[in-house]
Amino acid sequence: MSFSSAETVPQGVVQAMFLHPDAVLLLDQTALPREVRYTKITTADEMRHAIQTMIVRGAPAIGVAGAYGVVLSGRQHLSEPGQTCEKFVQLLLADADLLSQARPTAVNLQWAIDRLKTLIQRLADASETPQTILQKLEAEAQTIYEEDLAMCHAIGQNGAALVPKSARILTYCNAGALATAGYGTALGVVRSAFETDPTLQVIACETRPRLQGARLTSWEMVQENIPVTLITDNMSAWLMKQGRVDLVVVGADRIAANGDTANKIGTYLLAIAAKRHNIPFYVAAPSSTIDPQIANGDEIPIEVRPDEEIYWIHDETICPEGVSFYNPAFDVTPAELITAIITEKGVFRFPYHW
Amino acid sequence: MSFSSAETVPQGVVQAMFLHPDAVLLLDQTALPREVRYTKITTADEMRHAIQTMIVRGAPAIGVAGAYGVVLSGRQHLSEPGQTCEKFVQLLLADADLLSQARPTAVNLQWAIDRLKTLIQRLADASETPQTILQKLEAEAQTIYEEDLAMCHAIGQNGAALVPKSARILTYCNAGALATAGYGTALGVVRSAFETDPTLQVIACETRPRLQGARLTSWEMVQENIPVTLITDNMSAWLMKQGRVDLVVVGADRIAANGDTANKIGTYLLAIAAKRHNIPFYVAAPSSTIDPQIANGDEIPIEVRPDEEIYWIHDETICPEGVSFYNPAFDVTPAELITAIITEKGVFRFPYHW
Repeated sequence: MSFSSAETVPQGVVQAMFLHPDAVLLLDQTALPREVRYTKITTADEMRHAIQTMIVRGAPAIGVAGAYGVVLSGRQHLSEPGQTCEKFVQLLLADADLLSQARPTAVNLQWAIDRLKTLIQRLADASETPQTILQKLEAEAQTIYEEDLAMCHAIGQNGAALVPKSARILTYCNAGALATAGYGTALGVVRSAFETDPTLQVIACETRPRLQGARLTSWEMVQENIPVTLITDNMSAWLMKQGRVDLVVVGADRIAANGDTANKIGTYLLAIAAKRHNIPFYVAAPSSTIDPQIANGDEIPIEVRPDEEIYWIHDETICPEGVSFYNPAFDVTPAELITAIITEKGVFRFPYHW
Repeated sequence: MSFSSAETVPQGVVQAMFLHPDAVLLLDQTALPREVRYTKITTADEMRHAIQTMIVRGAPAIGVAGAYGVVLSGRQHLSEPGQTCEKFVQLLLADADLLSQARPTAVNLQWAIDRLKTLIQRLADASETPQTILQKLEAEAQTIYEEDLAMCHAIGQNGAALVPKSARILTYCNAGALATAGYGTALGVVRSAFETDPTLQVIACETRPRLQGARLTSWEMVQENIPVTLITDNMSAWLMKQGRVDLVVVGADRIAANGDTANKIGTYLLAIAAKRHNIPFYVAAPSSTIDPQIANGDEIPIEVRPDEEIYWIHDETICPEGVSFYNPAFDVTPAELITAIITEKGVFRFPYHW
């Protein structure tokens, strides 16, 4: 179910999701920028579907959305007839597992859900009632949301210190308010720098196939009157060669222990180009994006998404029938191509010791 | 005026243009692959417009089309009342100059038109009649067409020798039959190699903003049952990293004396990626693409095309109002990133001495 709601949603704030007493409202990121429309999510299954179809997307945002999905599961199952505490916990954990598998690459989704699963297990072991478990789940999910927002502001501050005066900042995909609880990671750096230097400019790569740079990043920038120039993804190196880019900052979906970083497909190509032109290449991400279980990027699972994402643009196909497609949604940028990784805890440089 | 004509155009051959007694027929490359439609061009001005709007595109093809445009000018002006030889030549040369300025980057356009201008001047100096001048112009334009076709076949043969068995060949934009008099340059190499090795595969980059890779290259490949996989432009490096690309071959719009090569925007990024992965990066082009007047790539004029090419896809915009755009149509790949340049005369390697 979708609706445009001026009453239930605060105006003037770019916020990807709201936890309401009867639902989670997701700003439908597939409809932007044409339409600002909220989708009402009332079950864990609807949330899993919303994550898979990218109504909500961005590594930190799907972490929070996944946590909210577990809350919705608790609300669903609490009132089921003949509910027992044991069964309630089983159903919660089953829904949590399904949610955590909605998309494979971003570690924040697993991270947030594992945090709730640990809490559920602890409360179940303490023989808490389903009501209490749900109440504490809601509080913990809200804490995850608020922590993410606070981390984005800290990332912004830490990153802004790296931005020279009147910088032309190239960014990729959308690592903004829409991809997080708010404010953004890469765009948090932009926002924070812009507060003290309104002469900076953003260059957004459109980010095929789903055009998050065109649709989402440029929309966020326009909302706040931050000057933004849109280019196609194949232009980055030529702009660098012409001296039109001062630094690159992108988000991350998963960072291995050694600093290898999975992010939206095309990030690796951009990092190679930046290296050739000696342009700083920064990754901005909350520490929840770092996966210490994974030694290096070779172990990061890369989601391959449907052919249709390439084949269709705006309800028309772009090539004849008989063509094959390959649509990896992410790639891995090796640590040595990354000048620094900006987290809420500070700025880390290669070789990475967190 | 446009029409779909089964009677006037041979079926089963990919051919971008036909010189007919009353017109030039251009296969409308803006309508492909949705529609195979020919546009009838009867004046030099219509031809200039067709080149600018990319109804016909590709460096060798616009060279031939420009020459045909001069022929159309001759046909127009021959029958004008009170025509004198001197006035006829003046009008021809004025139209030729306008045609040669239709697009700035591809040198083949200037090259072909300069060749006709030299002929016109020589015939005028010999006091030939307008009828004779026109007749010889038509013959020369047709010779340019046939030479280009022959060069493409020779390029194909020369390039095929560089293609290993069962190669996965990545190509960019469209340097095919549509971009030439026929057969193609980069796709000439593919076609020639495919004749003896039907196990090869093509990877086509979609080539934003105008999607020539998706619309034209994949269409040409499908016509001839050559297996083709379409990717977005930002995926090339990730495929290379995964060992999915054996070589890259692209066309060229202008090659400086030192081998620096202007080609469709994004070629430079691709060449940087190929270099990092030690994958051979070939440029395939007729020798008419080499501009000995220009020492290096810094002197090649780069066309910047309208914002709308990025802003609109299939009659819908991709970003909100308030965004700026930058739309260079070409970039320059430095000679040292090019493994070899394949022309009809042979395979040249860095440092380039033609």
